[in-house]
Amino acid sequence: MAYFENIKPVKFEGANSSNPFSFKFYNPEEKVGNKTMEEHLRFAVSYWHTFTFDGSDPFGSGNMKRPWDYLKGMDLAKARVEAAFEFFEKMNVPYFCFHDIDIAPEGDNLKGTLENLDTVVDMIEEYMKTSKTKLLWNTANMFTHPRFVHGAATSNNADVYAHAAAKVKKGLEIGKRLGGENYVFWGGREGYETLLNTDMKLELDNLGRFFHMAVDYAKEIGFDAQFLIEPKPQEPTKHQYDFDVATGLSFLQKYDLQDHFKFNIEANHATLAGHTFEHELRTARINGMLGSVDANQGDTLLGWDTDEFPTDLYSTTLAMYEILKNDGLGRGGLNFDAKVRRGSFEADDLFHAHIAGMDSFAVGLRVAHRLIEDKVLDNFVADRYASFSEGIGKDIVEGKADFHSLEKYALELGDIQHKSGRQEFLKATINQHLLQEFAK
Amino acid sequence: MAYFENIKPVKFEGANSSNPFSFKFYNPEEKVGNKTMEEHLRFAVSYWHTFTFDGSDPFGSGNMKRPWDYLKGMDLAKARVEAAFEFFEKMNVPYFCFHDIDIAPEGDNLKGTLENLDTVVDMIEEYMKTSKTKLLWNTANMFTHPRFVHGAATSNNADVYAHAAAKVKKGLEIGKRLGGENYVFWGGREGYETLLNTDMKLELDNLGRFFHMAVDYAKEIGFDAQFLIEPKPQEPTKHQYDFDVATGLSFLQKYDLQDHFKFNIEANHATLAGHTFEHELRTARINGMLGSVDANQGDTLLGWDTDEFPTDLYSTTLAMYEILKNDGLGRGGLNFDAKVRRGSFEADDLFHAHIAGMDSFAVGLRVAHRLIEDKVLDNFVADRYASFSEGIGKDIVEGKADFHSLEKYALELGDIQHKSGRQEFLKATINQHLLQEFAK
Amino acid sequence: MAYFENIKPVKFEGANSSNPFSFKFYNPEEKVGNKTMEEHLRFAVSYWHTFTFDGSDPFGSGNMKRPWDYLKGMDLAKARVEAAFEFFEKMNVPYFCFHDIDIAPEGDNLKGTLENLDTVVDMIEEYMKTSKTKLLWNTANMFTHPRFVHGAATSNNADVYAHAAAKVKKGLEIGKRLGGENYVFWGGREGYETLLNTDMKLELDNLGRFFHMAVDYAKEIGFDAQFLIEPKPQEPTKHQYDFDVATGLSFLQKYDLQDHFKFNIEANHATLAGHTFEHELRTARINGMLGSVDANQGDTLLGWDTDEFPTDLYSTTLAMYEILKNDGLGRGGLNFDAKVRRGSFEADDLFHAHIAGMDSFAVGLRVAHRLIEDKVLDNFVADRYASFSEGIGKDIVEGKADFHSLEKYALELGDIQHKSGRQEFLKATINQHLLQEFAK
Amino acid sequence: MAYFENIKPVKFEGANSSNPFSFKFYNPEEKVGNKTMEEHLRFAVSYWHTFTFDGSDPFGSGNMKRPWDYLKGMDLAKARVEAAFEFFEKMNVPYFCFHDIDIAPEGDNLKGTLENLDTVVDMIEEYMKTSKTKLLWNTANMFTHPRFVHGAATSNNADVYAHAAAKVKKGLEIGKRLGGENYVFWGGREGYETLLNTDMKLELDNLGRFFHMAVDYAKEIGFDAQFLIEPKPQEPTKHQYDFDVATGLSFLQKYDLQDHFKFNIEANHATLAGHTFEHELRTARINGMLGSVDANQGDTLLGWDTDEFPTDLYSTTLAMYEILKNDGLGRGGLNFDAKVRRGSFEADDLFHAHIAGMDSFAVGLRVAHRLIEDKVLDNFVADRYASFSEGIGKDIVEGKADFHSLEKYALELGDIQHKSGRQEFLKATINQHLLQEFAK
Ligand SMILES: [Co+2]
Ligand SMILES: [Co+2]
Ligand SMILES: [Co+2]
Ligand SMILES: [Co+2]
Ligand SMILES: [Co+2]
Ligand SMILES: [Co+2]
Ligand SMILES: [Co+2]
Ligand SMILES: [Co+2]
Repeated sequence: MAYFENIKPVKFEGANSSNPFSFKFYNPEEKVGNKTMEEHLRFAVSYWHTFTFDGSDPFGSGNMKRPWDYLKGMDLAKARVEAAFEFFEKMNVPYFCFHDIDIAPEGDNLKGTLENLDTVVDMIEEYMKTSKTKLLWNTANMFTHPRFVHGAATSNNADVYAHAAAKVKKGLEIGKRLGGENYVFWGGREGYETLLNTDMKLELDNLGRFFHMAVDYAKEIGFDAQFLIEPKPQEPTKHQYDFDVATGLSFLQKYDLQDHFKFNIEANHATLAGHTFEHELRTARINGMLGSVDANQGDTLLGWDTDEFPTDLYSTTLAMYEILKNDGLGRGGLNFDAKVRRGSFEADDLFHAHIAGMDSFAVGLRVAHRLIEDKVLDNFVADRYASFSEGIGKDIVEGKADFHSLEKYALELGDIQHKSGRQEFLKATINQHLLQEFAK
Repeated sequence: MAYFENIKPVKFEGANSSNPFSFKFYNPEEKVGNKTMEEHLRFAVSYWHTFTFDGSDPFGSGNMKRPWDYLKGMDLAKARVEAAFEFFEKMNVPYFCFHDIDIAPEGDNLKGTLENLDTVVDMIEEYMKTSKTKLLWNTANMFTHPRFVHGAATSNNADVYAHAAAKVKKGLEIGKRLGGENYVFWGGREGYETLLNTDMKLELDNLGRFFHMAVDYAKEIGFDAQFLIEPKPQEPTKHQYDFDVATGLSFLQKYDLQDHFKFNIEANHATLAGHTFEHELRTARINGMLGSVDANQGDTLLGWDTDEFPTDLYSTTLAMYEILKNDGLGRGGLNFDAKVRRGSFEADDLFHAHIAGMDSFAVGLRVAHRLIEDKVLDNFVADRYASFSEGIGKDIVEGKADFHSLEKYALELGDIQHKSGRQEFLKATINQHLLQEFAK
Repeated sequence: MAYFENIKPVKFEGANSSNPFSFKFYNPEEKVGNKTMEEHLRFAVSYWHTFTFDGSDPFGSGNMKRPWDYLKGMDLAKARVEAAFEFFEKMNVPYFCFHDIDIAPEGDNLKGTLENLDTVVDMIEEYMKTSKTKLLWNTANMFTHPRFVHGAATSNNADVYAHAAAKVKKGLEIGKRLGGENYVFWGGREGYETLLNTDMKLELDNLGRFFHMAVDYAKEIGFDAQFLIEPKPQEPTKHQYDFDVATGLSFLQKYDLQDHFKFNIEANHATLAGHTFEHELRTARINGMLGSVDANQGDTLLGWDTDEFPTDLYSTTLAMYEILKNDGLGRGGLNFDAKVRRGSFEADDLFHAHIAGMDSFAVGLRVAHRLIEDKVLDNFVADRYASFSEGIGKDIVEGKADFHSLEKYALELGDIQHKSGRQEFLKATINQHLLQEFAK
Repeated sequence: MAYFENIKPVKFEGANSSNPFSFKFYNPEEKVGNKTMEEHLRFAVSYWHTFTFDGSDPFGSGNMKRPWDYLKGMDLAKARVEAAFEFFEKMNVPYFCFHDIDIAPEGDNLKGTLENLDTVVDMIEEYMKTSKTKLLWNTANMFTHPRFVHGAATSNNADVYAHAAAKVKKGLEIGKRLGGENYVFWGGREGYETLLNTDMKLELDNLGRFFHMAVDYAKEIGFDAQFLIEPKPQEPTKHQYDFDVATGLSFLQKYDLQDHFKFNIEANHATLAGHTFEHELRTARINGMLGSVDANQGDTLLGWDTDEFPTDLYSTTLAMYEILKNDGLGRGGLNFDAKVRRGSFEADDLFHAHIAGMDSFAVGLRVAHRLIEDKVLDNFVADRYASFSEGIGKDIVEGKADFHSLEKYALELGDIQHKSGRQEFLKATINQHLLQEFAK
């Protein structure tokens, strides 16, 4: 059965195409440097936003129109698997991602839930045999059910902690079965609502212990996926412990976990934390911790996680710049943790939105590649920091300077000469490259 | 004498030019629709940011390097006039804007200040005889001097109110002499620091009276410039009375001033107020109040007025879209109320920054024109609101419906059918147009 | 049947009481000036947050534990009425407020919905005969159902407009039957998601027409309640047309509606718009438009509407200051548009939260009254603006000044003398009064 | 000579005093627990805001009226020392803090600057012999002078790095001479304006090297002060590397500096980073890194560092709660990094503002002490986390659990039982304690 009958497989037709169901810029086979676009971008579809999200918001009930709406329970879960693989194929995406409860409903108790999962995972496994689409990552949803009201691995309630452990244990097993390349932890309720009732130290210590247990269990079962922490500063909690990359790094170092984790960086979480997307990518990159990306965008004039499909070409360009400088995402990918607007409630919009996002990252890839090829920024930066390649600067970098030698040097200096940082010129240069890349 | 000796007049060289001192996209003579780019865009240079600003910020002293730095007092003022007209000519801009104290230093008392102004205005008048560059608008600075600590036309101190009146009186006279096309009011300290010590009603009533006096005096001297209010929500005051366009409109209506004023809309003030630039332009436009634009951009992750040169092509496109839909800015223009970053302290950066801004608006103009020509949005919108062109919708619009007729109609309706708002598709369409416009 | 069996009627026990189910500061019969606390504060319980809200958030499903949870449909609706009047009585509140769908579920079609409403309104009417609790206001929910996805009175779809009219018509009829003292309009989806697909002018014109029809119909049926607009800047929409009080005032003036409406001001909406609560109250007050209050508080470090119960005594004091200066709220009241946190899921928390809010406003009332009685701020303000009571200042206020007389005066002035605004001293004074009021 | 002739030494007069130049709540000798208020609070006056700040803001020139305004250069510097010690004595504060350029002007070159410093430090040393006021900390200003335009220890220019080293070297020597108990690093320009021109990794590596050199040099000269990093997220830079406590902790761990540093936490920097003040204090505390406090407050509706004097009693109470739980600040103190508002330009306001701040922290101290004494929060928290004291929870905490044992336990669990987090009740309890503490 087809769920998206009226939609043909989406193909690259080029920038002049007026077919809304075609790629204008994303050509999976096009080589950019030594890899194809598909290899560079490693796009993934998010199961939750695409197959589960019903359009509800804090002031509105679900309104999305989906061909599987008439079903319930396990029947619904199975129909979504069918629809998902149809969608993957029509969009020609190499990866997908899911939370446990995206694919299977909770049962009457934990045992029932795990059984439901087994049933659907069997089905997914079967579909994957004939599909090109692989599992980028899975994760356990530990924030929707009322039992997680006070957190999961940071709950005040040890029963919840145990329940969460059982879920992650299952998640790791599923990841192994389905060949997941990564496993993600997003701690939506790992944080606090008010410090007045919170033992922050105990909660963080417990979280550290939880991650160690997860590392141990993955090793035990031979699941060698990359573990990823996805930072977010707040929402739904008042404060989330994995506030941003730097906070996560601080935590991982303290609990001696940094060799076992990298970060899954979401654009909208970056901006909610007061950072640009590229800042978070850069911070992870220079610490060797850039693992994967949740590709979306927020609205910086709004204070919540809008999870919009990424269409801002500045953002996609600067993100791809960091990713190329990182020599790619390794086992990670670009997962569209993005949802269609409530007003875009038709099934067609799922295609429009993914096309918008994939084309935008394809543009970003090409422009970023050009910037790097032409050494537009590299040359500028090299020149700007040249003083650290010789003389006193070299001494500093090589650890040969101390306050005595530096003071002596400084006392002999005349007025210090500076060069402009040329921010306006550099921004204009980005514009020129953006427009020229597709004018050729 | 030349102040920017090493810079040749900046010319259009096209998108492939690698000459940093050339326009890549702004071609003043290029026709877009029935007007040239120069006629559409009506660019103006801000005297304050370009010739007066020293680079200081709340944590740093002045650092800009300017060829006139060695001068003081009236000599400095005169040198800046010379430099300004050299800059206008080299940048080939049709307009400039200034505050009174940008062009002449305060004297020992009000009389001395007015005399200083006369001297410099004489000089500017002379320069204007042979320059193509005209006065877009002038204004009175009523926020820098300590006397304005508690406001100007909303001060608690009647002496300050009188002083402010004298300054605006002079400003109107200068505007008339120099042929200014507009006159601007930005009330940087017209607001409050704390309600605890503030009589908000008296202050607003006094502000209304002040504007009426200004209107009367302009009429008296035959100065027929367009009066403009420039909204800003805060900074330097905790709360500024002209918070945004809607607030300004509320004030103008209450004090029966709306026929005498339009708005000068600054991009960065829009975002500080929680709005997009295009929202403020649209709000002014549909109320017939779009007068002029302070063309800059902010950083929505920062909470203060960064006044950056505009380089975001989405913003320039959507701004030009509103302006074209407004049938242009009339007597208004695009004034670069934008300053080079502290790190861009070389005189060259003034050129780089203006080129960046002018090119960015030229791109915006062309893309917006194309969107309108191709009816990309117009057709979508017309279709979306079609229900108001017939039947019950037509009755509503024509004032023929009431709650009885609407209830009757509603009771007979079956399930209401909606169409998707297609936000993702529309955003992708903007990207496609942006990249295609320059690929032709 | 009792739903809150374990809770006894909540009484005033004074600040030393350790009974969590007692008022520490709210003593309904205590005279403050010439009115009792109950008469001043006119507290109302919100039906939606207290009897309908299930605790869900964008990342979590409903978790509130309510004694009526086992019921469904009309049985649930009826149980809630019973529980509501028990709650009103135990909390001893004089008012309540509701949306149509809070009290009765939607039927299969509009007709069914209206019938369900009639049934429950009958029941409420019956309860009100023996209850002291009256209807502060009711309203129509025009944002939850999918049909309102693109707005209600500003929808692009005329069918929705008609449906909305039918709902408001019914709301006015219900308000009349139940003796409602006000009728509220909160336009949760009256705004836009993106300007790209929006005809802002048509939408606003239609909204103006809608309000006129509502005014006409209320007059027709003899319902003389005060009409109230409740501003909010955004959420759920990207931009809401009733952004803040000033924006609302602008709209009402343009559409000649200002004699028929006042504002219902919500604290959390004020802060989302970048204003303090007291700013919005002051703005409404000095324009004669302060109608009623949604008493809650937000978290200014979070970017969404948290609707917390009000406990900040600075906020309640400054709010009550404006209300006392307004000579009270007239037919308005203090409605707790506030919800218990997700973590406060027990029925007991409904009592704790209302006690917290009522006590906080009682404290605010007493401190504000004392500030006014002692003329703490009035004397300071009178002295600060004294220059407008004589001489040139008096001329200005009386409309006898013009730019000529003011310039003449200014030219003769020496250095202008200022007095400090004393913000730090005034804030310390507020603290001193806050702590001293209850030390007596 | 006296600079504040009309002000008598400020004494504790109690909450009923109407003398504005008296303490209402701060009684230095009053015992709270086992220490006096003076010993608990360790107040410090900031030299910069109190003796150097001229009232200027980005839109206004200096307007503060100070008795030393008529002086210049070294004469001005010396007069400020005299005024400072008069102020310290009249306010009876135990500590002060300064940047190098607060106390002495820059000379013609580095040598001249160091000599100016020596002269003024001699004078301060002399004054300190007879004053009770000691040096809490000093620091080097590496952000005001144009040479720091691109940073100091993170500059792209090695000459600047050397110059910065010479300044810090001198700062450490001065700290040693004057018996400073701490030494502070606030990196106002240690960050970036745009990633486009920034080598973030090199800059951070260089910063790590710089701190190691500082540690080494302090050790060399036997200066055993506590080193403190003061986080701030942005302003003046777009992004500051020491964004918040967690980011600083991440940096210190990476560069193996955490044994040598603690944090100096500023309230307004906390809120600019999206955190509460108490969040930053708690984060530092549970990591053993709470060193000292910059006691001020921001305006969370404004996006810049307003550095207001602290008057919010909720904030002072929750801050003192963390400090008492930390067993005090050790060698740190409460430094008023706070400036009078531009409108509070009279010298008297310096006294009003410090009184406001000191009284507010005295109230906070007493309320926090009471909350701890009465175990108001401790008991609630202990009960809330009780499940980790026994059974499976104890196993978790003791490291005896793994995913196998936890899954086994979880599978046997029935529905998980939760208790309410009681946020509303706890907030009401804080109010009750606040008002009751001074009613006794
Ligand atoms: Co994500
Ligand atoms: Co998100
Ligand atoms: Co402007
Ligand atoms: Co600006
Ligand atoms: Co409300
Ligand atoms: Co609300
Ligand atoms: Co500080
Ligand atoms: Co600060």
